[in-house]
Amino acid sequence: MKIRVGVLGATGAVGQRFVQLLDGHPWFEVVALAASSRSAGLTYGEACHWVLDTPMPTWARAMPVLDTSPDATFDCLMLFSALPADVAGPVEETFAAAGYVVCSNASAHRMDEDVPLLIPEVNGDHLALLATQRQRRGWPGLIITAANCSTTSLALALRPLHEAFGITKLHAVTMQAISGAGYPGVPSLDILGNVIPHIGGEEEKMERETRKLLGRLQGGCVAPADFPVSAHCNRVPVRDGHTECVSLSLAQTVTREDIVQVWEAFQAEPQALGLPSAPKRPVVVRQEVNRPQPLYDLTVEQGMATVVGRLRPCALFGWKFVLLGHNTIRGAAGGAILNGEYLVAKGWVPRA
Amino acid sequence: MKIRVGVLGATGAVGQRFVQLLDGHPWFEVVALAASSRSAGLTYGEACHWVLDTPMPTWARAMPVLDTSPDATFDCLMLFSALPADVAGPVEETFAAAGYVVCSNASAHRMDEDVPLLIPEVNGDHLALLATQRQRRGWPGLIITAANCSTTSLALALRPLHEAFGITKLHAVTMQAISGAGYPGVPSLDILGNVIPHIGGEEEKMERETRKLLGRLQGGCVAPADFPVSAHCNRVPVRDGHTECVSLSLAQTVTREDIVQVWEAFQAEPQALGLPSAPKRPVVVRQEVNRPQPLYDLTVEQGMATVVGRLRPCALFGWKFVLLGHNTIRGAAGGAILNGEYLVAKGWVPRA
Amino acid sequence: MKIRVGVLGATGAVGQRFVQLLDGHPWFEVVALAASSRSAGLTYGEACHWVLDTPMPTWARAMPVLDTSPDATFDCLMLFSALPADVAGPVEETFAAAGYVVCSNASAHRMDEDVPLLIPEVNGDHLALLATQRQRRGWPGLIITAANCSTTSLALALRPLHEAFGITKLHAVTMQAISGAGYPGVPSLDILGNVIPHIGGEEEKMERETRKLLGRLQGGCVAPADFPVSAHCNRVPVRDGHTECVSLSLAQTVTREDIVQVWEAFQAEPQALGLPSAPKRPVVVRQEVNRPQPLYDLTVEQGMATVVGRLRPCALFGWKFVLLGHNTIRGAAGGAILNGEYLVAKGWVPRA
Amino acid sequence: MKIRVGVLGATGAVGQRFVQLLDGHPWFEVVALAASSRSAGLTYGEACHWVLDTPMPTWARAMPVLDTSPDATFDCLMLFSALPADVAGPVEETFAAAGYVVCSNASAHRMDEDVPLLIPEVNGDHLALLATQRQRRGWPGLIITAANCSTTSLALALRPLHEAFGITKLHAVTMQAISGAGYPGVPSLDILGNVIPHIGGEEEKMERETRKLLGRLQGGCVAPADFPVSAHCNRVPVRDGHTECVSLSLAQTVTREDIVQVWEAFQAEPQALGLPSAPKRPVVVRQEVNRPQPLYDLTVEQGMATVVGRLRPCALFGWKFVLLGHNTIRGAAGGAILNGEYLVAKGWVPRA
Repeated sequence: MKIRVGVLGATGAVGQRFVQLLDGHPWFEVVALAASSRSAGLTYGEACHWVLDTPMPTWARAMPVLDTSPDATFDCLMLFSALPADVAGPVEETFAAAGYVVCSNASAHRMDEDVPLLIPEVNGDHLALLATQRQRRGWPGLIITAANCSTTSLALALRPLHEAFGITKLHAVTMQAISGAGYPGVPSLDILGNVIPHIGGEEEKMERETRKLLGRLQGGCVAPADFPVSAHCNRVPVRDGHTECVSLSLAQTVTREDIVQVWEAFQAEPQALGLPSAPKRPVVVRQEVNRPQPLYDLTVEQGMATVVGRLRPCALFGWKFVLLGHNTIRGAAGGAILNGEYLVAKGWVPRA
Repeated sequence: MKIRVGVLGATGAVGQRFVQLLDGHPWFEVVALAASSRSAGLTYGEACHWVLDTPMPTWARAMPVLDTSPDATFDCLMLFSALPADVAGPVEETFAAAGYVVCSNASAHRMDEDVPLLIPEVNGDHLALLATQRQRRGWPGLIITAANCSTTSLALALRPLHEAFGITKLHAVTMQAISGAGYPGVPSLDILGNVIPHIGGEEEKMERETRKLLGRLQGGCVAPADFPVSAHCNRVPVRDGHTECVSLSLAQTVTREDIVQVWEAFQAEPQALGLPSAPKRPVVVRQEVNRPQPLYDLTVEQGMATVVGRLRPCALFGWKFVLLGHNTIRGAAGGAILNGEYLVAKGWVPRA
Repeated sequence: MKIRVGVLGATGAVGQRFVQLLDGHPWFEVVALAASSRSAGLTYGEACHWVLDTPMPTWARAMPVLDTSPDATFDCLMLFSALPADVAGPVEETFAAAGYVVCSNASAHRMDEDVPLLIPEVNGDHLALLATQRQRRGWPGLIITAANCSTTSLALALRPLHEAFGITKLHAVTMQAISGAGYPGVPSLDILGNVIPHIGGEEEKMERETRKLLGRLQGGCVAPADFPVSAHCNRVPVRDGHTECVSLSLAQTVTREDIVQVWEAFQAEPQALGLPSAPKRPVVVRQEVNRPQPLYDLTVEQGMATVVGRLRPCALFGWKFVLLGHNTIRGAAGGAILNGEYLVAKGWVPRA
Repeated sequence: MKIRVGVLGATGAVGQRFVQLLDGHPWFEVVALAASSRSAGLTYGEACHWVLDTPMPTWARAMPVLDTSPDATFDCLMLFSALPADVAGPVEETFAAAGYVVCSNASAHRMDEDVPLLIPEVNGDHLALLATQRQRRGWPGLIITAANCSTTSLALALRPLHEAFGITKLHAVTMQAISGAGYPGVPSLDILGNVIPHIGGEEEKMERETRKLLGRLQGGCVAPADFPVSAHCNRVPVRDGHTECVSLSLAQTVTREDIVQVWEAFQAEPQALGLPSAPKRPVVVRQEVNRPQPLYDLTVEQGMATVVGRLRPCALFGWKFVLLGHNTIRGAAGGAILNGEYLVAKGWVPRA
């Protein structure tokens, strides 16, 4: 018996990725697709301007789009949320209060003290915040959140380094894909043959979320990692895949081989548990001088890994490298689905 | 009477910019276009696959392409060199030895101790190296060099800050246009919808040349600036214009307004001399949250200025900002022409 | 004394071209910029997301944006309209009824029997429809319209051929730039690395307008040209410039040289009158095997000419060729301004 | 026991597709990868600049690249040829004379009277030319050829219409992907944000090959279809997938539904034989107003089908529509592999 799930914000670009990635999922079965009242009443095929390069699953095409109103009820216990930032906050709370397990990709609750900002390979232990959440909020359901897309790829690459060597400073410059802005998102006149050196709120998210993700549980709270983080975020004319130029300082003197070995050896609970969406290798190291690249490295581990390359000394920080992550798979829908699988494996999702 | 000049490597992408920018130049008249023996004997119109968006000047179309052989002679005293890196070294020396004033855009001699790496607004005083050059080499002619494209835009923005406040650390990540790789250059299959996080030799050039450009003349030599520099260089699908995300530390505590004021007040000898190619404002500050952008800011000051924006505090360095420069105008042909004008103004070019 | 003019729909992509092209215009002075009530009250600099690659003119930046309501009054007699198709119809009529000379780029009135669909080089004599218009509508003002962008470039190339040889069949396939859809227009996710083989209503416009443009005045009406026209319209990831593959049959047997000569000799009233925006050569012929191309041929005649090339025999039609036109200059704002100049020259604009 | 095969021209863009598509092929096992002498001696991983978005198969990476010299011998009987046009002619003949079954994607022998230009769904019966070939040439091996990429997609869509209704006139305008030009192929400076309205030799190939493909076997030869064909070919900034705007006349009066039904019902011998690379539906019909599109319709039937859409009346021809085909799968390597499978199924490949 599969676990019945619903998708909130199902017609948007991230909502579509949920539908695509949940198609044939071994544990989950989509029984509800919800969107704004504008789409409610239409079939998903009618309401949705599909922007992915594999066809819309047949089962989804004919499903009715439900209205995401506060008093909506869905025939399931678990909801994946791809709601827009401006509505996610109260709506997700309402559903958690109504008993649903909400795995959100929205930013609204990420920094809430009692909400896990979860990447299972990075900070699975932060799930302990849910005890605080239940106690404080009194919800029969719960909310967990996935991190910002650029932050997710970065945190995966940082986690094993921070554990092994201790990161003391971090600088990241991103070159982000247009799919990160949703649909219709970035007008073509703005980006064709251009670079936009600004993405609203993104730098703050990277600086804030990275430190929460790598922070430590202390007395039911997360104490953020205490190293300084600085980010520059840019939009480039690439469809999928955020590339990041990272410079960092470590607390220990290490060799290039030490770092590569730590990345390649990195395994965590999702791998041990064999979660369906867990990449075999959370961090994949490329040795070529000019990789990773969005065109060639996004299919590795079905878009669930961070691909790193060009590790070399940095005159300022000690080390610098390039990383690439799939912003709408690991950085959005895929990440939230893995979070859901992790919740199931850890016993947080009732089997009824 | 105009000064007769020649262009070496005239059929390549940078050579074409020389031809375009020298069209109607008030001081210079092109009397010789030289290229490899493959093109010699053809007219320029036949030999050249023109890649600029204004038509090839009529006078250039019919000119015969001359062979760039060591024993070639040109009916002029001044040569602008857009020669490829692998041949520029000995060829430019031969021509200097033969009495020509060589204004080079090639990298071959940039780091030579007795060759000025010149950006007139940045280090006009480095022209004093020519005395050393004459003495050591015994050439009746001379060689000066323009800096690497990414470095040129960067150094223009740094110069006033270094003078006013003292730079102590510098980190730059570039997103560089395809025209920087010449023609045929980057295959479209490699870059359409992609980012290539590597440009051979570019990071080393930026790190090395920036310090020479901002260095001090001491006893006939240049002592490089002593702050550490680290660069990541990327190629993006943009036609013209290198965008750079810069983080830097200053020796003094300053405000945002202090920095903006220093940039906006920046004037140097080329402006004072009224050199034909000198931008009125070498550094142009944009206040919008998402500028500069290649699509919109490359025509400012005819591509001869560095456009800066997004100046804001950096948790690691103190300050961060974005800059944009035209890589084939100020960063290549236009920069070398300005160098030539400066040489003329300073009396290094014989008037015969 | 310049003629005072206003621009309706001034904040959109075509409205911006009007502002850019009217900057420094020898006959016209912009005294009013109007847009929807959303923008009214802001300055133009605040209200307008500028998408052109030259800076917004200084005079425009500070102008207040006026509201385009039916009872608005402007301190001028002539209005250039870049209104969206869905509102242009009644609004333009209201202003004509109020006494304004309306030079429209909108499609609303193009096919009205008593409204000239005007390209001065193609059908300047159609201005005679204004007599009918005055009589029927009783307006103190008037409306003339510019043709659809794809149609304008096509009609310019066809006019001399139709006059000299008689066109009997016409087939055109377009590859149209994203700027044709305005701003925000085409989402980047839809077009980056893609072709969209459909533009709503465009094929019908090309088929219909081409025949009206090449039609004959008969008894105060235009009898459309009677040859069949078929069009396929596509959107491609190009910023500016519509490329069209044209096949056509002629009533006479001619040589390639005959056609080229007719194109190159083509001159019409705007050229004879020396109208400020009239191209010296309305049709420019390229001889290269792979031209025209948007990247290289849009600056010819300041974007006011149709550039043709690749004229060669067609097994089905007799002849085929490629043409290129600037869709937001000759195909929109520039075309409407030339229409306005023609109206002035022909005495239809009161000088007060 | 699998059939051992080799790939000639294995390091180029089409050669790479052969390697990718033959990875895990149920009938064929690659035992030889050959390229020019420049690459010979290197491993395939070293010699090949991989341009596909799935990783190079592990088995291929370590294989030695063999030299494609006339006296080379390979440990197999069947060779897939992705040789460049300028060398394919004599080299393929040499190998056929040496006993190899050569399935070529090169153009050299396509129009030879005794060489099948084969698309199994279109003209499987043309295999009968092999009897003539054997007789005339006396080769123990043989040569068959796949058609030009644009022509292949077109012919698949035309075949059922020609059989059912009789095509009497055909006009096609293509918008072709950059991968069709191989690697390095089209320089990015030529195509980023541009359209190139010319592809050398392509129009002639489409006009010629279409008629041979749809021709009739008569006395051991193929009499080409006798309807006139005219093509315009363009390059657009799309990675994979050729889009074509087709207009055609039929000998019979039919309805839209008649045509759609004939396309959807189309099945041929490869489908009946269940060849491994045969698409279930050789022609896939899309009903949406703006499809097919390269971004969304290239994965249908693993790139082995022609996707058609926008069927509508044409004022000149009767009917017009848009089609899309994958130029390096069905239009190149995938097509040649299907040809090879068909040869096996028809008993032309010795099992030793």
